[in-house]
Amino acid sequence: MPEAASAAATRATIGDSEFDRDTAVTRREPGVYAIDLSAGWTIFGAVNGGFLLAVLGRALADALPHSDPFTVSAHYLTASRPGPAVVRTEAVRTGRTLSTGQASLFQYDEEGNEVERIRVLASYGDLDALPDDVRTSAEPPAMPPVEQCFGAEDGPSPVSGGSAIAERLLLKLDPATLGWALGQPSGKGEMRAWFGLADGRDADPLALLLAVDALPPTAFELGMKGWVPTIELTAHVRCRPAPGPLRVSVTTRNLAGGFLEEDAEVWDSAGRLVAQSRQLARVQLG
Amino acid sequence: MPEAASAAATRATIGDSEFDRDTAVTRREPGVYAIDLSAGWTIFGAVNGGFLLAVLGRALADALPHSDPFTVSAHYLTASRPGPAVVRTEAVRTGRTLSTGQASLFQYDEEGNEVERIRVLASYGDLDALPDDVRTSAEPPAMPPVEQCFGAEDGPSPVSGGSAIAERLLLKLDPATLGWALGQPSGKGEMRAWFGLADGRDADPLALLLAVDALPPTAFELGMKGWVPTIELTAHVRCRPAPGPLRVSVTTRNLAGGFLEEDAEVWDSAGRLVAQSRQLARVQLG
Repeated sequence: MPEAASAAATRATIGDSEFDRDTAVTRREPGVYAIDLSAGWTIFGAVNGGFLLAVLGRALADALPHSDPFTVSAHYLTASRPGPAVVRTEAVRTGRTLSTGQASLFQYDEEGNEVERIRVLASYGDLDALPDDVRTSAEPPAMPPVEQCFGAEDGPSPVSGGSAIAERLLLKLDPATLGWALGQPSGKGEMRAWFGLADGRDADPLALLLAVDALPPTAFELGMKGWVPTIELTAHVRCRPAPGPLRVSVTTRNLAGGFLEEDAEVWDSAGRLVAQSRQLARVQLG
Repeated sequence: MPEAASAAATRATIGDSEFDRDTAVTRREPGVYAIDLSAGWTIFGAVNGGFLLAVLGRALADALPHSDPFTVSAHYLTASRPGPAVVRTEAVRTGRTLSTGQASLFQYDEEGNEVERIRVLASYGDLDALPDDVRTSAEPPAMPPVEQCFGAEDGPSPVSGGSAIAERLLLKLDPATLGWALGQPSGKGEMRAWFGLADGRDADPLALLLAVDALPPTAFELGMKGWVPTIELTAHVRCRPAPGPLRVSVTTRNLAGGFLEEDAEVWDSAGRLVAQSRQLARVQLG
């Protein structure tokens, strides 16, 4: 088989990829969805927060009359683990151009009782119906080309069992935000990377919900170690991303009182600011 | 009576002020609160979004075991009007240092049915229990001193019936963000002002929820007119504000597709970044 044809046969597409299979939910009854959370999107055993947003986002896209997340606000209650889960959704208000919904993901304790992991409010619309008027004054992050950026596979041997999600992603970090991996954190609350899915699937609005929480914590560059759990995260999806790699730039400016904010921007290959998010996370001091 | 004593007798305090009286809620049953929304905090007849956050915030402070809002995420469904309202709260998860709750404000249609105006998720904690570690790298906005800034009372006659809330606030805008009021919008998505309550009450965490949505829309400086309804707003309260005036700086960098984001920062008199928020709002194009 000619090489080009076999490459085309194996590259994942939107709708047919690891990400689609692992975020797929099964409707059990109106508004209620089941999923077995994959172990493939965990970091130190906990399911990644952005991946959870994508799962909830897929359920809400089915439950609401509009299919694109415009703004998703999530409060994280307890860490999610690989295994069975149920998503319960509610249509809060349906309008002509926007609908608002609520969704919770539950898992089970040893007695089989539901334990709520995360609750979100989200407003959905139709990204393709938005007018073309673009007056973005923000500028894309200054980052080296992807060939001059580095992923986990380029460095010393990975932390054993640490980060299954790293195998699902093509993450190439800006060397200016990689000091932490070499024992020399920059002291600046910044993290930047080229982002893609490992199987080559292009990004779509649900993948943007993953992208905003997919980079290492800025806390690492601020010299802190350990887990930085997300308390709350709000993401805005502003545009359907163009095919090709994304640039993700995360900034922290207010590390204080044991908490920090992480502001993420996602830029597509056409230079559009396709998503923005802010999360509040708790750090371990001293 | 000596002048100083009479001034002290009339200056409002936290707990005894217009803001406290107008955001007070009456518990009807566990988790359910009633309020008659004051007409004093409206803009063109609609109750201000930040004021609504403060009302919901007060109810949640009563309903949850922790009393300070840390992060509040609100989805605005329909505009609120002065008049009777009910707030229904739910404790979602209570923990040792953080609790999460949900709250909705309803008003009534002509048949007396409840119509949901706004739904929020919020996580609460104890701001006074936070460690003193402050490594904020953000800098306060460069603004002229308050004597060189201007409020509605300094300009041409106010728009009749426009903005009752203006009488409740001491808002002095940075002249660099006032061009819109003189028919010469700057074209930059920026709005900055000194903020206080008109009766002199100092700010507290609930007043910060008001402050983040109290300035004129950045859309005015971007040359747009008309209402800029908030779809979603998330605020982080990071510190109990010091007594004295606040500086509020709002920035828009992503006006596109008929929507824009407004990022607000609130700085207190001690130079602390006490609150941050981002809202997604819809603009009227052309």
